[in-house]
Amino acid sequence: MDLWYTEKQTDDFGITAKVKRTLQSEKTDFQQLDMLETKEWGNMLVLDGMVMTTEKDDFVYHEMISHVPLFTHPNPKKVLVVGGGDGGVIREVLKHPSVEKAVLVEIDGKVIEASKQHLPSIAGELTNPRVEVKVDDGFMHIAKSEAEYDVIMVDSTEPVGPAVNLFTKGFYAGIAKALKEDGIFVAQSDNPWFKADLIKQVHQDVLEIFPITKLYTANIPTYPSGLWTFTLGSKQHDPLKVGQDRFHQIETSYYTQALHQACFALPKFVEDLTK
Amino acid sequence: MDLWYTEKQTDDFGITAKVKRTLQSEKTDFQQLDMLETKEWGNMLVLDGMVMTTEKDDFVYHEMISHVPLFTHPNPKKVLVVGGGDGGVIREVLKHPSVEKAVLVEIDGKVIEASKQHLPSIAGELTNPRVEVKVDDGFMHIAKSEAEYDVIMVDSTEPVGPAVNLFTKGFYAGIAKALKEDGIFVAQSDNPWFKADLIKQVHQDVLEIFPITKLYTANIPTYPSGLWTFTLGSKQHDPLKVGQDRFHQIETSYYTQALHQACFALPKFVEDLTK
Repeated sequence: MDLWYTEKQTDDFGITAKVKRTLQSEKTDFQQLDMLETKEWGNMLVLDGMVMTTEKDDFVYHEMISHVPLFTHPNPKKVLVVGGGDGGVIREVLKHPSVEKAVLVEIDGKVIEASKQHLPSIAGELTNPRVEVKVDDGFMHIAKSEAEYDVIMVDSTEPVGPAVNLFTKGFYAGIAKALKEDGIFVAQSDNPWFKADLIKQVHQDVLEIFPITKLYTANIPTYPSGLWTFTLGSKQHDPLKVGQDRFHQIETSYYTQALHQACFALPKFVEDLTK
Repeated sequence: MDLWYTEKQTDDFGITAKVKRTLQSEKTDFQQLDMLETKEWGNMLVLDGMVMTTEKDDFVYHEMISHVPLFTHPNPKKVLVVGGGDGGVIREVLKHPSVEKAVLVEIDGKVIEASKQHLPSIAGELTNPRVEVKVDDGFMHIAKSEAEYDVIMVDSTEPVGPAVNLFTKGFYAGIAKALKEDGIFVAQSDNPWFKADLIKQVHQDVLEIFPITKLYTANIPTYPSGLWTFTLGSKQHDPLKVGQDRFHQIETSYYTQALHQACFALPKFVEDLTK
């Protein structure tokens, strides 16, 4: 059988990937979860009809949401990942020896289970002793935390379904409270080709709360338009003023020390969204 | 009717775009030419089943193949575009007041005609008096030229069909001969996710001829993987050592002075292809 998964990324455009077989397909308490074995991308996690990660390109997203804030912070010890049940961000966080504890708060335990079973190269570090996994509401976890974390990454789905609260000013204010006085946070903030208004809104909202707010990009071929943005909010540390001695060697496939700077150089039409 | 254009970018992955109507579809002497009116991207030129350009995202490719070499050269006066019958590169070249003459050599006159008719925002400058349009074989034109051009851009299709000669060492040697002693050339060199071997080969071949050979990237959402590469070969001028005073204001939607530097900071797995 010639089976293809087609994702409409807008009403009028999408991607299509050849599927060997469906490994899992279920309606969880929070969303539709599908795990597909594809020919081009290896195993692929799809939530509510949107590709979340694949075995072939996961490194881009997970490296770029992690290493940019973690190298910007001079000494990150306690890190929180909101969402990210596939474990990819955790895997990257643990490459930083300063990190003593990484907490993952994922609302949907089924995502964690499915990833452990079908995405072992991504989820493999979730059982690391430096990691604490909580199946809980990230918004509520943030609301209960105070001056606790050095770095917080929000690895959410799009602002539909369970993630809708994670794109609000109230959530960013909660994150600021949950961070220590020199804390840094990053959230994935979608793509500039189809979601320009969202990027603009997120940037404005974060800028009201964090004195240093910057947008950066990475190429993720299975995400809409291939150009993804991350919004970074920082209380003190500027990602563009990291001392050379702060960087140390880690194994990556996308992130480099040069890209740490270069990823903040935005295409003109994207830069305009931050003004 | 619910009509979709689906392009298999690999055997197992592709894009799909909703089509309002087919504006033109014909077999020229060189290739299959289709012009589609799409909902997401406006009018779209497709050659041999591959998207060449669209009204919505054409600025990325055309700005990035042009302004990087043109600002690297201190005073480009005579410029050659090989291929590029849609006229997008020419439009960008003319933004540089130093350019006295821009020659376009496109093998397929039908591409020029179709673009003038259906892509006026892209092809509009082809009738500018500073432009000379030749319907001719780019490979042969290069072979006949000697120390004539300051900058040459190769805006070709993939290395199949009419463009196959444009990805050979002999062609790069011809380009070096056609350039003046401080000339610069750029060729589009496909994407690193599906065509890593091609990028590696082009880089090796160009490096044998041009002492300064560098790869840079841009995000093109309608091209495979969204991450496109350009290979730049230069006899003297280094694109990373352009004086601040060289840059002047031009109207762009993608290229910026900061990106001129940043686009050479490659993702690790791409950087590895140049070693």
